[in-house]
Parts: sequence; structure tokens; C-alpha cells
Amino acid sequence: MTATAQSTDNTTTVPELDHEALTRLVDYWKAANYLTAAQIYLLANPLLRQPLRREDIKPRLLGHWGTSPALNLIYAHLNRLVRLTGQDVLYVTGPGHGGPALVANTYLEGTYSEIYPAVSRDVAGLTRLVRQFSTPGGIPSHVSVPTPGSIHEGGELGYALVHAFGAAFDNPDLLVAAVVGDGEAETGPLEGSWKGISFLNPRRDGAVLPILNLNQYKIANPTVLARHSREQVTNLFTGHGYDVHWVEGSDVEQVHRDFAAALRTAYGQIREFQVAARRPGATVTDAPHWPMIILRTPKGWTGPREVDGVQVEGTFRAHQVPLAGVRDNPAHLAQLEAWLRSYEPERLFDAGGRLIADLAALAPDGDRRMGAASYANGGRRTEPLRLREWRSYALQIDPARRGTLLHETTRPLGELLRDVYQDNPTTFRVFSPDELSSNRLGAVLDVSDRCLVAPIEPTDDRVSPDGRVMEVLSEHLCEGWLEGYTLTGRHGLFATYEAFAMVSASMVVQHTKWLQEASKLDWRVPVPSLNVLLTSTCWRNDHNGFSHQGPGLIDTVVPLSPGVARIWLPVDSNTLLSVADHCLRSRNHVNLMVADKQPHLQYLTADEAAEHCARGASVWEWAGTEARHGRDPDIVLVGIGDVPTMEILAAADLLHQFVPSLSVRVVNVVDLMALLRSDLHPHGFSNPMFRALFTNETDVVVGFHGYSRAVHQLLHGRPNPSRFHVRGFMEEGTTTTPFDMVVRNGVSRFHLARLAVEFARTTHPGTDRLVDHCELSIERHHAYVTEHFEDLPEIRDWTWPGRG
Amino acid sequence: MTATAQSTDNTTTVPELDHEALTRLVDYWKAANYLTAAQIYLLANPLLRQPLRREDIKPRLLGHWGTSPALNLIYAHLNRLVRLTGQDVLYVTGPGHGGPALVANTYLEGTYSEIYPAVSRDVAGLTRLVRQFSTPGGIPSHVSVPTPGSIHEGGELGYALVHAFGAAFDNPDLLVAAVVGDGEAETGPLEGSWKGISFLNPRRDGAVLPILNLNQYKIANPTVLARHSREQVTNLFTGHGYDVHWVEGSDVEQVHRDFAAALRTAYGQIREFQVAARRPGATVTDAPHWPMIILRTPKGWTGPREVDGVQVEGTFRAHQVPLAGVRDNPAHLAQLEAWLRSYEPERLFDAGGRLIADLAALAPDGDRRMGAASYANGGRRTEPLRLREWRSYALQIDPARRGTLLHETTRPLGELLRDVYQDNPTTFRVFSPDELSSNRLGAVLDVSDRCLVAPIEPTDDRVSPDGRVMEVLSEHLCEGWLEGYTLTGRHGLFATYEAFAMVSASMVVQHTKWLQEASKLDWRVPVPSLNVLLTSTCWRNDHNGFSHQGPGLIDTVVPLSPGVARIWLPVDSNTLLSVADHCLRSRNHVNLMVADKQPHLQYLTADEAAEHCARGASVWEWAGTEARHGRDPDIVLVGIGDVPTMEILAAADLLHQFVPSLSVRVVNVVDLMALLRSDLHPHGFSNPMFRALFTNETDVVVGFHGYSRAVHQLLHGRPNPSRFHVRGFMEEGTTTTPFDMVVRNGVSRFHLARLAVEFARTTHPGTDRLVDHCELSIERHHAYVTEHFEDLPEIRDWTWPGRG
Repeated sequence: MTATAQSTDNTTTVPELDHEALTRLVDYWKAANYLTAAQIYLLANPLLRQPLRREDIKPRLLGHWGTSPALNLIYAHLNRLVRLTGQDVLYVTGPGHGGPALVANTYLEGTYSEIYPAVSRDVAGLTRLVRQFSTPGGIPSHVSVPTPGSIHEGGELGYALVHAFGAAFDNPDLLVAAVVGDGEAETGPLEGSWKGISFLNPRRDGAVLPILNLNQYKIANPTVLARHSREQVTNLFTGHGYDVHWVEGSDVEQVHRDFAAALRTAYGQIREFQVAARRPGATVTDAPHWPMIILRTPKGWTGPREVDGVQVEGTFRAHQVPLAGVRDNPAHLAQLEAWLRSYEPERLFDAGGRLIADLAALAPDGDRRMGAASYANGGRRTEPLRLREWRSYALQIDPARRGTLLHETTRPLGELLRDVYQDNPTTFRVFSPDELSSNRLGAVLDVSDRCLVAPIEPTDDRVSPDGRVMEVLSEHLCEGWLEGYTLTGRHGLFATYEAFAMVSASMVVQHTKWLQEASKLDWRVPVPSLNVLLTSTCWRNDHNGFSHQGPGLIDTVVPLSPGVARIWLPVDSNTLLSVADHCLRSRNHVNLMVADKQPHLQYLTADEAAEHCARGASVWEWAGTEARHGRDPDIVLVGIGDVPTMEILAAADLLHQFVPSLSVRVVNVVDLMALLRSDLHPHGFSNPMFRALFTNETDVVVGFHGYSRAVHQLLHGRPNPSRFHVRGFMEEGTTTTPFDMVVRNGVSRFHLARLAVEFARTTHPGTDRLVDHCELSIERHHAYVTEHFEDLPEIRDWTWPGRG
Repeated sequence: MTATAQSTDNTTTVPELDHEALTRLVDYWKAANYLTAAQIYLLANPLLRQPLRREDIKPRLLGHWGTSPALNLIYAHLNRLVRLTGQDVLYVTGPGHGGPALVANTYLEGTYSEIYPAVSRDVAGLTRLVRQFSTPGGIPSHVSVPTPGSIHEGGELGYALVHAFGAAFDNPDLLVAAVVGDGEAETGPLEGSWKGISFLNPRRDGAVLPILNLNQYKIANPTVLARHSREQVTNLFTGHGYDVHWVEGSDVEQVHRDFAAALRTAYGQIREFQVAARRPGATVTDAPHWPMIILRTPKGWTGPREVDGVQVEGTFRAHQVPLAGVRDNPAHLAQLEAWLRSYEPERLFDAGGRLIADLAALAPDGDRRMGAASYANGGRRTEPLRLREWRSYALQIDPARRGTLLHETTRPLGELLRDVYQDNPTTFRVFSPDELSSNRLGAVLDVSDRCLVAPIEPTDDRVSPDGRVMEVLSEHLCEGWLEGYTLTGRHGLFATYEAFAMVSASMVVQHTKWLQEASKLDWRVPVPSLNVLLTSTCWRNDHNGFSHQGPGLIDTVVPLSPGVARIWLPVDSNTLLSVADHCLRSRNHVNLMVADKQPHLQYLTADEAAEHCARGASVWEWAGTEARHGRDPDIVLVGIGDVPTMEILAAADLLHQFVPSLSVRVVNVVDLMALLRSDLHPHGFSNPMFRALFTNETDVVVGFHGYSRAVHQLLHGRPNPSRFHVRGFMEEGTTTTPFDMVVRNGVSRFHLARLAVEFARTTHPGTDRLVDHCELSIERHHAYVTEHFEDLPEIRDWTWPGRG
């Protein structure tokens, strides 16, 4: 597929909606509304072929009616668009609480029964359809992973638009219809997502059509946008760059007519922009004013207008279940029956319980059905990345002189990513909050500019509308775009400052949940992993200060699904390359890679790195003295992460120098989950493997990149975990030197060496001298930084002499 | 202070800026620009009284020049406003990387030297001023806690406006000038913050004046807003509700003149809105079109125009240090000297190194100086909340019938909060993402409406412009407003769904860092704590499904500063009341309170709850069999959190029933940090206290609210931690029943009882029967949910018979 695959002869205009078509479309909508309400209320009698009885009602009424009629209306009209134009459409349901609406539509179009044959297109299937909804052992109440056609869980609001744009990038044939609730529109991430069109290139990307459902209420409150004048709302979205089309009202036929006209206009604009941009020789110099639709309809439209004398339709009271007392209140039961019968199910479904043919014909066929779209089951579209041999980017390391070369760890990864861009021109992107060069990944700019679909100035550096490197000052956008990009079958990397990765932590959590659920469904084909590079880490944000120092995302990801969550702490460039190569080939994982960008010591040859990363953790024999002593270690030193590993190595040197009779083992852990028991995580080491590294009883001193207790929690259940003495980031920081950072947090070589002799099993000659040396060194350092302020310390004590 | 304290006779209009005043103001600005650049570069020779030498230059150049000239311009003009009107102004620095600019201004106005006497207003002080900046042992490079006049750390971008609005609520005399960078304006939280004016009431709140510094570049890229037309940008902010005033250019005098005029107009509008709204009998029915200023000036304005033939001023290259090679490149050194001398320091500072009197007079006096504003040191303004005796809201519990009353745990807290509103009409607010009633805190609506400064419709429920209950569908806004509110000395509570508290997790982290640093500075008076109620928890979001089930914020907060972080898991209404009372009285803490809103069993009388919460954890003798057996326990059962505690109690009953000879102790932990060693957290139990609860060697079965390893990490360092067997949320969820949730996650009574007999030290009669019973019960449950789907399970097995 090339970036301009869609032929320009696709039908660009949709015919106007004539009266007959309108009537049928409204009927289709009624069928969807009926099945929506039926799912919320019924557990039997799905077509009301008997009078409604108390026993037909679910014991516990769950679900969200309020947003559903609008979701159904939009679905029906998009069906028509697809049918008439052949356009591929992905439906993103921002008001995802309206799960029954999407289930209803995918059932009506047939995809639901194909995926879940038990929910067949007959009365038995309909019975199952209504019973399963929001029922233990059934399906969740929201648009969720089991919902066909969805890439978007509707629980945590805010990400509909950012997912939509991520799906549209590099999918030129795709139109993403993104329904946004006016409640969701209040969230920060959603508000920030409107700017997606400044990064959407009509030549090579698909289109996003936002449809704001301005139904005016949230659970309990009016929305902010609901009370702004139409002029003010128009200004807002015009200001975001959109051409706004309003559809307002509560007259069924009129709203349908107006929506059809608005969609027709909007689609015409989209195709016009695309056709113009995709003409040979055309160039894109600014973002078109893409259309959006504002659909202002009553909340819970067509539902109960009043209940017990209080208005429900058009108010917050229609948000969830508008009639709550139906099992105990005969009047409510009667009102429910009247409401359900108002959709005339007997006219819409045939004797067998199947949607009548006349209406069924309104849905598209095959994979054009939105519930069957391959885009929404991205694994079906995924092709493996073309990846060159990662060793070709590796640093040359002389095993006789390890730890003598200082190199920016992430820079070779940038070179690898450059060639990934080159070799996969439409299926790979890097996303970064304005930090790509800062994070030493700038090599990708040799083959692709940064993307900005806007006028370019001479003072810009490698920025253009044709650029495909995504930089925007928003972790939410970077992370969310990557989610949308991978869920539709493409590959990518989100590279960010470690501390500010917490900004989008909740998105990582929710995406992990999505992948966990997806892996349980056979029909969901695995998608490329969400790869997150955490760099500019706490230890080397000595220049930016305390706000920039926070390794907390590790603690967020550790408890998540072991089938999905992976945490890597490569210690140098070659281990980072090996890990990144693995992650870029993986599927259905969330890979955190933690590696700083500053110059760091380099230790392993490419082959050693490959073997080390494949194992997850190894003894570094060249760094210990065990072999020389020919006996089990007196102490095990463990480095996890770049800076702590350097300090561990320097501590090993101090031990060697002061206490030469001590047998020291040095271990490095690159795959953090290896510390977990093998029954708790697929990467967890078996107890024999664990013992082979850490012995059974010897004390272990660990220098860890993050908060020390993140390691302690992993070690629970291992033999004798109390012998592990972990030092890590303890939330002490400021603008200072790198070495002061490790001293402040007790992870300096001096702290670690002192700790090692404290816990070594027997006392060896030289121990007292070592302890004195360490304590004196720490004292001197403190004096240096605090009392001898006038001496203005340079960076020092920040190397390691290397070892053959 | 009343809500309309500011007299209407405050000078509403600022005189126009005449030429002489302009000249002096420009000179003041030059002095600030000079000191800004001097801090970035110099370690000596601060006034260039000697020719600039290599040795005068810092070895490591850190800091952000790009944004600083604009920050200085705004500060100088606000000084003038304050001086001429007597207005209290708080300066919020969104582009907080421009730390040296704020330090320069607070130094020039005198507050810096008052707080830090060593940085005196003479050459010695100036030397210290420049040396300390971004230097180990000195001060951080950003606007941060040590910066006088700041409530806002400039590291993690996105929160300038939300902090500004939080500060303005209920501070009618305050004007918050919120500078927003156009980089920061790309973040989701900032984009979402513009809507603050829909919640700002001119009668009782202060004003926020946003000043967008459109300097067009981020670190490496143009900003999105920079490339939109002036018309489009105006539309955007008009759409957000603002009246936009543009100030553009690079001609120094013209920009200063235009900015003075814009500020004059804006201030006039603000005062006009306030005076009108504060007239007796006036009512506010809609948000005024508050002014904002867009200041479009070159990035790094007045800095080096070109370096090595490449344009720097006005481009991203001016973001940090525009001349980087000054220590090694004599041409750069000369260019730096010329740049610094262009500000004519010899004319601006007197012989002693003090700003000349003519310019010093341009700063306001005393506490009107923005660096000295009491609002920015909120503890100075804090008055204790008026709190009634919390026991008056307590549920009546009969100790003979514990665990028999089912009550929504959070509801009595709502009643307490209602009276806190009543008794503290201008110093307390609750913030919630549209979930207040859902979370059973609706009693507050009896005394205050929800706030929306917009037209109200008859279908609204207790919403009005005069309401002070803050509901908006954005965790970022809720959390950020509360931060601004408490940092300026008022009290509040953020009540939210547990899972979605992760949305603003990074804000909690950054606020914890702020409080940690503040507690080290004598001059920063402690402020009210950030109180976060996590409710609608994972165990009882059985109706909403997996996306709503996530206790991860606990894991985020556990590793943070022990001086600040507190985590409470009250088990019923009375413990929640006791904890909330404690938290509302506390200072400088971040209190996470975790308690579900659904009906739960109630156990403790008010007095018992008070004692239990004061201890942090206790043995519940009435629930165990230890006393009856008269010997040490064979097993200790521990509940932490409401649902797991109920399951622990039911497990204790099973043990009693099946294995009556077993001696069982039941413990409840309400203060999670009590599990930490006492040297690691002020709430940590000493080892004797710990042993008194958990013995020294007996196995302990824990039912925990969150991820089990959050407990394991706390237990490291305790005697024999491997004997603790913790079951908690293991990331298994969907739409199901509450009981299925505990079964899925292995925390059901059956799982816990089986675990208990597995680990009890000796085998007692009945053990095999108990194990059979538990396994059969779990099997039956699974069959019930999955195979016997047609039976549609109701909620069952979800009680406990109570105990006297």
C-alpha cells in the first residue's frame, strides 16, 4: 500500500436523502434504539411478543441510555455513507458508556453474530443478546474490547479524538468518525486533542470527522459547552481549525434530514481536500479547514419524556436508566412497555426475529461494515516491521577495555530508528513531546522531517507537512496517537522524559487493560506493542531539578497484567539496541524501556548484549572476583539500570581495592520482571535460575534505577528475600551534579561498598579501612556541595576506570 | 473577610503610560533582563565592572533564556499596576523554566534579600545571586519552591491556569496574572483549563488574567498556535469566552506602550465586572467576557540575534542558552559581553551594586510586592477550619451487633462536609468530576449549589453561579483547582472515582514534591493538606467494568516523601469520619483516603473508630478466637480496606465454624504507612508495636484493597516478612457481581480461609472439611457465573452475619 492508495475516483458525493430513504433510515434507527433499551431492561421476551411482565426485567438495571440514541443515529447515517461511497469508516465511540448502542448496531449489521455465533440473528440470539448485557458472565456495559469494530474503551473519558487521529495517520483510505460527548469534551486530554488536524496530512493520512454530541448534560450537571451560545461554540471550533456544521433539534425526521445533509457536505469537503492533495505534483502547505459536525439532540431522545411528573428526556436524569423502578412499580413497567413498543419491534423484525430484509439492506456488506472493519482489529492489517540487523548499529566494545567509552546511550538507537523510518515508510512513527533531539534520537530527522501541517518558516529546523516524526508538547497526544496507530496495525515508539511519562500514566494503564482483554479473544489478532522509551531519567536530570526526577511509571506498570507488562532497564547502547529490536518485533505488550540519553559508560559487545538481554539477567564475571577466589561469593552486587550499575561496578572496585580477600559477584538485571517468580510472570526466573544468580543465602546489595521498594515487592516469594538490600531513588533531588544525585539518594559507590561489607558474611582484612574511606568520601562530598559552595564544584567522581 | 471584601473604590483605571514612565519602565526591564542573563552565565564579576573573562563564566551553563524577557516585561508592568492601584496580584509563571527571570525580579523588588539575607542588595549579594543559580548547593533552574511569590513549579508543564483559577476562587481581592507559554498551551491539561471562567464568579471570586506568551517556539519546534492566523487564534480564545487583547512586535518601546495599554484596558474590564457584580442586590447570571492578553514577542528577545551566522533570537535556538561556547570560544565570549553590556548595568546599578533609587521606586512596597504576596505563602493566610465534633455524624453501632448494619460508607461524610461548607463559607470547597451525588456526598448540596457561571435551565438540579461545589468532568481541573486553593491557604477535598484518580496522578506526584521542598524552608508556612477521597473503588465498580477498576494511585503515592504522603483505608463510616476529620485539620500532607460509596457493613462505634484510627491498626478482639483459646494465635488475619476486611471477617467465621480449635487473631489496618518501619515513615510502627499486632513468627493472611505487592514492599525490613500472604486486586475484572470480583481476584472468604489453614502452624481437626468447603464453594461460584448463565445470578454471598 502506498501513501496515496485511495483512488481519486471514489464516489465523493453522497446523494441527498429522499423521503423513502429517510423513512427506512429512521426505521433502522428505531430498531437500534429498541435493541439498546431492550439490552438495558430485558432478560427475556426480547421482541415483546408477549405482554411485558416483571419476570422479563433484569434484577439489576445497568447501562447508559442517555447517549445511545445519538450514537445510533450517527451509526445509521455512516452505514449509508459507506454503502453509497465504499468508504472505509472506523467508528470511535467517545461516549463509550453507550455500549448497548454499539452492540445493537453490530448485531443489526450481522458482524456480532459472526463473531459470537451464540448471539444469532433470531429470537434465540436476541434473547441471548439482551440477557448477556451487563450480566455476570455476559458482556460489559461499555464499548469495550469484546465490542466488534472498536479500538476504544469508553470507560476513562478523554481519548476518543486522540485515538481517532492515531488511527488516521498513514491510513489514507480511512475515515475515522469520532463521536465526542460534551461531557468528555471537558477533559483536558480531549480538549488538547482537537489540534490533531495540525498534524494530519490529507495527501498521505486518512481523515477524522469529529461529531460532537452536544446533548447538554453529564451524570448530574449541564456541560460547560451546553451553556455557551452557538456563536461562542462555533468560534471555539473554528479557532481549533474546523469548519463547523450544526445539526440541532428533536424533530426526528428533520434531524435525520439535517444530519444526512451535514454528513454529505462534510464528506464532500473531506474528499475534496484529499483529491486535491493527492493529485500528482500537489503539495500540502497548510491544514485544510476540516469539517466537524455538532449534533445537538436531547439526552435520552425518544426515551421517557417524564417519569413520575419529572422531566427525564433532555436532562441529566436520562443519563443511565431513565425508568428505574420497573420491577416494583407497575406504572413504571407499563411506561417501559409503552416506550419499547413505540419503536414498533413487530414491524422491524420478522417472524424469526431477524431484522426485515428491507432494513437489513441498509447496512454495508462484508468488511465494509463498521463492526467488521479490519482497521478495528489491527492485527489483521499488521505486517512485521522491516528491521535491519541491530548489531550493525552497535558500538564496538573491546572486552579488554569495558566501561571506558563514554557514549550517549540512546544515540545509536536513533540511528536504528532512522532506518526503520526509511524501510517502513508508512507503518512506523516516533512520537515525542518536543524532545526528540534532546533525547539524542535526532538521526530520524535525516530521513523524515518533523510533522507540522502549517506554514513553515525559514527559521524552522526540519519541520514540514510531509514530515512523519511526531512532536507535540503533550504526553497525552503522543501516547494516545501511538495507541491509535498500533491498534490499527502499525508500529511505533513513544520517547519521553521519564518523569513526565507519569502525565499519561493512566493511558498506559488503560491500554494495558485493553491488551489483556484482547488477548483473551481469539478473533482479536495481536497488534504491535506499545513501546515507551523513558529517557532523561531521574539520575541525569541533575540540571532540570526535582520536578524532572521521578521514576514512578515503573511502579505503575509493575502490578499490571503479566501477560502484557514488560519493563526493561538496558545499561548501555548495545543492550538498548537489543531490547528495542525485541520490543519492535513484539505484539500485544506494553514495553517500558528505561535508558538515559547522556554520555554513559559502555560495557557489552553486541553479542554479549544479545545474550544478556535474552537471558534477562546475568552474572558479569569480568566485574567480580569470584572466579579468582574460586569460591562462592561473600556478597552479590546487582546493578539494575545504567547509573546504578556504574555505581555498583565502582563499588566492586572499591571492595577489590580495600578488601581483596572478599569474593564478589556482580550481576546485572535488564529485564525487571525476571525477578518475579515464574508462576507470576512469563519472564520470571525459575527458582533454580534465580538461585544461580543470587545464591540461596548470600546477602545481595542492589543498586536500582527506581524506587527501591519496586524491587522488594518483586522479590516477595523468593528464598530469603530479606537478604536483598536495595538502594534506589528515594525522592531526593534538586538542580545539582550527577554524582550528588547518587549521593543524596544513597546509591553512590561509597554507600554501596559500605553496605556490601556490612552484610558480607565474614569480616575480611581491610573492611575498616574501606568503611572509613567511604564515610570520609561522603562527608567530603557533602562539604564540597554545601559548605564549600564558593568552590563551585564541577562534575566529578562520575566515571569508572573500566575493566578488562 | 467576607466574600465581597474588596471595596468598589479601588482605583479601577490605571493612568496611561507617559514617555518618562515608559523610559524608566524599560530600564527596569533591562535590569531584570541583565540579571537573568547574568545568572545563567556568570559566577563572578556580576556587574561587569571588569572586562568579562573566561573565569567569570560558569563551567556548566544551565537555564532558559528564551521565555525570560517576556516574563520580565510582564512582571515590570504588573509592578506598575500594583503600585498605581493597590491591587493584590499573584504571578503564576507557566513558562516556569524561566526561573532566573522570577529570581531577578524578586531580587530587584527586595523580597529575595529579605528571605535570603546572604543574597544582599549589593555587589556581594549580586555575586551570590549569579553563582547560586543552577549550581550544586544553590538554587534550581526553574521557578520552584524556593522562589518567592510562587505557588507553581515550572517543571511539568500544563497547570499554570488551573492553579491560577484555584487561587482566585474565594479570594475576591486577588488578581492572578497567569502567564502561559505557547508550548505549555499544547498540553491537554492547559487546554482544558481555559474553561475556568465558567466557574469564576466576579462577585465572590478574584480574577484571573491569562497572558499567553506567543513566542512561537518550543525546544525544537514551532508551536501549533504560532502558525495559526491571528484571526483563528482570536476565534479560539473568544470561543473559550475571553476578550482577546493582542500585543505584538519586537520594537521595545512600542511593545511596552502597547502592553501597558492592553493591561490598562484589561484591568479596567476586570474591575468593571467586579464592581458591577458586587453592588448590593446584583446577581451574576453568566460569565463575563474576561480579558486575556496575547503577547507575541520574539523568543529570546534582546538576546543574541545571530550566533555563528545562524539566527537565534526569535527561534527555538534561543530556548535555553543562546551562546553555548563562551568558555572555549573567544568570539562567543565577546558576543556575550556585548550582549550583557547592551543592558547598560553600569547605569542601572549604583556603586554599591544596588538598583538605582529611581528604578527601585518602580516596585511596590511591602506585601504588595508580588514576591512577598501572602497569597503565595498560603500558610500565612490559613485559618483552621471550623469543624464540628465528627462523632455527631457517626452511625450508632451496637457492639453486640457489629457488621449487621449496611450503610453507604461515604454518606455520613457528606453530612459532615455539608456543615463544613456551612461553617466555613469562604474557605472550603469540594471538587469532583461530576460524581458528587454518585459518590453519596450530595448532602453538601443542601447548603451550596453546584457552581456554573452560566445561564441556568429549569431542568438543572441545584446548579447556580453562586454555587460553590465544584463539579467539572476533568480530574485535572478538580485536582489542580484544589492545589491552587490550598496553596493560597484554604481547605478542600477532591472526591473521585478511584480508577480515574490515575488521570491526575502526575499532579499528585508533583504536589507532593512541592510540599516536601516547602517543608524544608522556614519561611514557607505550612498549608492545608491535599485531601483526596478515592471512592467508587475497584471492588464495587462491578457494574462499570474493568476500565473502572484500578487501585494504582496507592502504588504511585507509596514511594513519595514520607514527610508528606499518607494513605488511609477506613473500613466503615465511623472510621472514615475520624480519618477525614484528621485530614481536614492536617497541614502539608497529601492524604489519600480510600473508601467505597456503596452500602457496606458497619463495625465500629465512634469511640472505637477514634481509637482505632489514632493507633493506625488494631487487633479486633471481637472478631478473633484468641481470647477464648487463651493462647497466641495460630494464624493472624488482616483486613486492609472495606471489602477485603469483610471477606477477612467472613473467613474468620469459616475458620471458627469448621476448625474451632484454631486460635485466630483478626487485625485491621487503617493507616497503610503504619506497616513501614518507624525509621522510614513517621507513621511507621516500631518493631515492638508491629510484633504486638502481627507476632514474630506466626503466618499472616492479608486481604488488601489494592495490588498485593504494595503491601509486600512496605513489609521489607520487618521480621520474617515472607510469612505475610497478601491477597489483593490482581487486575481481574469486568462487569459482574461484587462477590465475583473478590472470587476472580482470589480475595474471597473461601480463598482467604483456605490460605489460613494452609499456613496455620499445626493441623487442626476440621481442616480438610474446610478446604473442601472452600474449594467447592469457589467451584460452585464459577459454575454459577459461567456455565449456569441462564440462571442469571443475583448478588449473593455478599454479607457477613455480624458478631457481638
